[in-house]
Amino acid sequence: MLGLMQDWPLLCHRIIDHAGTNHPERTIVTRSVEGPFHATTYAELRARALRLAQRLDKAGIRHGDRVATLAWNTWRHIEAWYGIMGIGAIYHTVNPRLFSDQITWIVNHAEDRLILADLTFVPLLEQLAAKLPTLERYVLLCDRAHMPQTSLKNAVPYEEWIGEVDGDFAWKTFDENTAAGMCYTSGTTGDPKGVLYSHRSNVLHGLMANGADMKGYSSRDVVMPVVPMFHANCWAMMFAAPMAGAALVMPGAKLDGASLFELLNRYKVTSTAAVPTVWLMLLQHLEATGGKLPHLKKVVIGGSACPRAMAKTFQDVYGVEVIHAWGMTEMSPLGTACTLKPEYAGLAGDARLDIQQKQGQTPFMVEMKITDDAGRRLGWDGKTSGRLKVRGPSVARAYYKEEGDVLDEEGFFDTGDVSTVDRYGYMHVTDRAKDVIKSGGEWISSIELENLAVGHPKVAEAAVIGVKHPKWDERPLLIVVLKKEQSASRDEILKFMQGKIAKWWLPDEVIFVDEIPHTATGKIQKTTLRERFKDFVLPSAAAQ
Amino acid sequence: MLGLMQDWPLLCHRIIDHAGTNHPERTIVTRSVEGPFHATTYAELRARALRLAQRLDKAGIRHGDRVATLAWNTWRHIEAWYGIMGIGAIYHTVNPRLFSDQITWIVNHAEDRLILADLTFVPLLEQLAAKLPTLERYVLLCDRAHMPQTSLKNAVPYEEWIGEVDGDFAWKTFDENTAAGMCYTSGTTGDPKGVLYSHRSNVLHGLMANGADMKGYSSRDVVMPVVPMFHANCWAMMFAAPMAGAALVMPGAKLDGASLFELLNRYKVTSTAAVPTVWLMLLQHLEATGGKLPHLKKVVIGGSACPRAMAKTFQDVYGVEVIHAWGMTEMSPLGTACTLKPEYAGLAGDARLDIQQKQGQTPFMVEMKITDDAGRRLGWDGKTSGRLKVRGPSVARAYYKEEGDVLDEEGFFDTGDVSTVDRYGYMHVTDRAKDVIKSGGEWISSIELENLAVGHPKVAEAAVIGVKHPKWDERPLLIVVLKKEQSASRDEILKFMQGKIAKWWLPDEVIFVDEIPHTATGKIQKTTLRERFKDFVLPSAAAQ
Repeated sequence: MLGLMQDWPLLCHRIIDHAGTNHPERTIVTRSVEGPFHATTYAELRARALRLAQRLDKAGIRHGDRVATLAWNTWRHIEAWYGIMGIGAIYHTVNPRLFSDQITWIVNHAEDRLILADLTFVPLLEQLAAKLPTLERYVLLCDRAHMPQTSLKNAVPYEEWIGEVDGDFAWKTFDENTAAGMCYTSGTTGDPKGVLYSHRSNVLHGLMANGADMKGYSSRDVVMPVVPMFHANCWAMMFAAPMAGAALVMPGAKLDGASLFELLNRYKVTSTAAVPTVWLMLLQHLEATGGKLPHLKKVVIGGSACPRAMAKTFQDVYGVEVIHAWGMTEMSPLGTACTLKPEYAGLAGDARLDIQQKQGQTPFMVEMKITDDAGRRLGWDGKTSGRLKVRGPSVARAYYKEEGDVLDEEGFFDTGDVSTVDRYGYMHVTDRAKDVIKSGGEWISSIELENLAVGHPKVAEAAVIGVKHPKWDERPLLIVVLKKEQSASRDEILKFMQGKIAKWWLPDEVIFVDEIPHTATGKIQKTTLRERFKDFVLPSAAAQ
Repeated sequence: MLGLMQDWPLLCHRIIDHAGTNHPERTIVTRSVEGPFHATTYAELRARALRLAQRLDKAGIRHGDRVATLAWNTWRHIEAWYGIMGIGAIYHTVNPRLFSDQITWIVNHAEDRLILADLTFVPLLEQLAAKLPTLERYVLLCDRAHMPQTSLKNAVPYEEWIGEVDGDFAWKTFDENTAAGMCYTSGTTGDPKGVLYSHRSNVLHGLMANGADMKGYSSRDVVMPVVPMFHANCWAMMFAAPMAGAALVMPGAKLDGASLFELLNRYKVTSTAAVPTVWLMLLQHLEATGGKLPHLKKVVIGGSACPRAMAKTFQDVYGVEVIHAWGMTEMSPLGTACTLKPEYAGLAGDARLDIQQKQGQTPFMVEMKITDDAGRRLGWDGKTSGRLKVRGPSVARAYYKEEGDVLDEEGFFDTGDVSTVDRYGYMHVTDRAKDVIKSGGEWISSIELENLAVGHPKVAEAAVIGVKHPKWDERPLLIVVLKKEQSASRDEILKFMQGKIAKWWLPDEVIFVDEIPHTATGKIQKTTLRERFKDFVLPSAAAQ
């Protein structure tokens, strides 16, 4: 028997309808790419998104078509998402930080028909345009006055373009499982993979993000999404904030410490989110200038592990609550957040920071398990580490244009991370599955060894990889870049590490190099290192 | 094009799975119907709900079957809901406060196969049993030691009954639109109507209730649902609390001021919810004993309008934030909550109380409009009142066993309330549509006149109905019950009201009566009054 409740599909444009109707005067302030501050409201933003939807429709963009955006966080970029989704087309956020070859590859793979781009990226696009045959038109996110001279095909200023329709338009209606957005992951190996969000997954994900133990926005919040809209679906903020009627402060192209500090205080931002690198710049600026953060209440830190010292400084010096979070593009992206359950809520000082080093708890609608390599579930004791796998309505089951699902027999997606989970459900990422070193049937975390090694005063950067060993299968090799004008010996480094880890975790050898290779997004390229050292013979192996 | 996210149906038992897995040790404390306090955890509760599901399955309860509950708020009642839903059967909460004829009618209309009942209700059931032929078995919510002598068919103690299976069972899987629960509305006219919630509507409604501007539970909350589980789906609390991992305190059968006060402080309740009558008893108890509420942060007050003095006392005397809320059985039931948007958040004292007299803002997934009798939308100016209509995934579209949808052409459900909405989206119920007095094309709120009349020191209760008028169509007639040993004249009452309302709102006549008729749930039975006074000739009409 079916229930007798209304059929009300979970469509993303209902979110901007809600904000525009019930929070019509709430502001969205942007540091525009052109320069000046710009302010609008949810009512205006909704009206302009409808106008864009109408203009796209007039341009022949149809249900299922991909429309690329190459843009910073601005009010126009939000309009773009909602306008594109509102006719059943798909926003495809292109990450300008990728290598140009990757950008070309994903625009062609997605077969984007249009691109909406900020002025910043015109030179890049002019350089790539010849290799982007599917793009019929370049819409530049500016008005006529700011329109540059450009060779880009059918280039037109956004304001003029959407001004060509009257705005008398209604959202299209369709199944809630219709694709809404697309974001490519850039792994350290192979081609990028396209994740295809649906209206349903975006709406449910926004609801999930608004739980009190996640981002938990209210209409009284002023939210600054520093994490770019082209990064992992903007961490749910473009859905969660308007759903809650929260005000938005959009930082545009300037993400340096001084610029963010100005926005945080000028607009009384209460909640913000970004990767550690950004917050390092902000904290350096604060330290240099003596600046304070009287309005900011919460900072979400994710994308990579939140350094302990960063959490401590935000909390102890500036009185800002740190929420260490974890997720991935394939998870829309929210997976866990380290807010404190009652079991931990009473902790202070180091004990609290210890817990906050974990990535935290899942919300309802994210299920997780850890397994061994054979797929058997492992216990939640806070010590046993295993492959982290997740399930839920905002988790991917497949990649765009790839055959079949990537899920296990229980429907879980393998995150590629290795983690522990404690008895209270707190997940802690200990390594990437492909980087973990398997020594004598046990797992050694490359990340822990690297973190320990960079604690040595002479070490600038460290990478640990597993190399073959006749007895132990693999043993850790530590690769080190020393700080400028420093010298150190193998024994000096290993002695520093001794006693701080289990004895059998100690790397078998230390190699000093000038440079460690990185991906476009700044991750250590361990595949290159493994290739380079694949025939390396450890002293301990040679002795066998 | 469809998205590529996981198919993860919104099924209610996933909520208790989440709580049992991620908040396994969080407690559910009950003042048991038998007497002593009882404590359990989400992990245990989930395990026992699974056991009940297995036992129901063994008893031949199938997908779509209705299982009644006639029970107070206890841990066993929560198990009952989840156990019943977990095999695709339907929990049907029977309200023991209904007249016995109504109880008989709804159990027969629902064709309930089993009933799970508290000991309190055994005498009532024994009296009705002969008229309840569909019930195959009475499961009494107790153990063998507390089992009474009873003539009820196949009566068995719950604990013994679920002890007959081993608990090795998995939830069934089905479409998320499957019916999950059923609750009958008892209107002031006609037969009760069955609202049939789905798994999807319950899950979405729980998510909605957990928004920061609604109930907004976190894992650190201790939630006491005083509103009974048999009242309007327990105001979402049975879904929202375990979803958030909040602890629960279940008050059982004792809802008097002293009993609730004991629970609030003993278990450090942070958030609670009930109708004004309950809070009146608590406030009287506090005043009499000098009790304080050091732990309670939020009290949700709904079911009927929250008196201004009640809001003021909770906030000013006890430091508890009042959330005036509105909803109805057909809305799962949450419609609005009067939390403060930034436009109002700075208000204090009387200005704040003025706003808090409104029923407040809708969450995302509740859409509302106000219309005139012809269905035309009216503006949101805080003054114009119209019929309040709502739309959303947790709003009913039809009633059980009744033909066709009850929605308007835009898919909105007519709440039967008349309200204003202000520019910031705050809804204020001014009357019931059938009670509003239509005088010369304008609407007069019977509720406002009644509230004003009971402000007179000699008036115990007041009801206002419209009576026919040759010129104005209808004019208000005020019906008054005086306090004991008081006497008053027509002119004395009208003079008191004069100047406090628009002149043309003043009732044309005052009638003094000994008693005003009420429904089983305590509402004034205006149909009876209208019938009684249908031929009443107003002096103003006679003069025409």
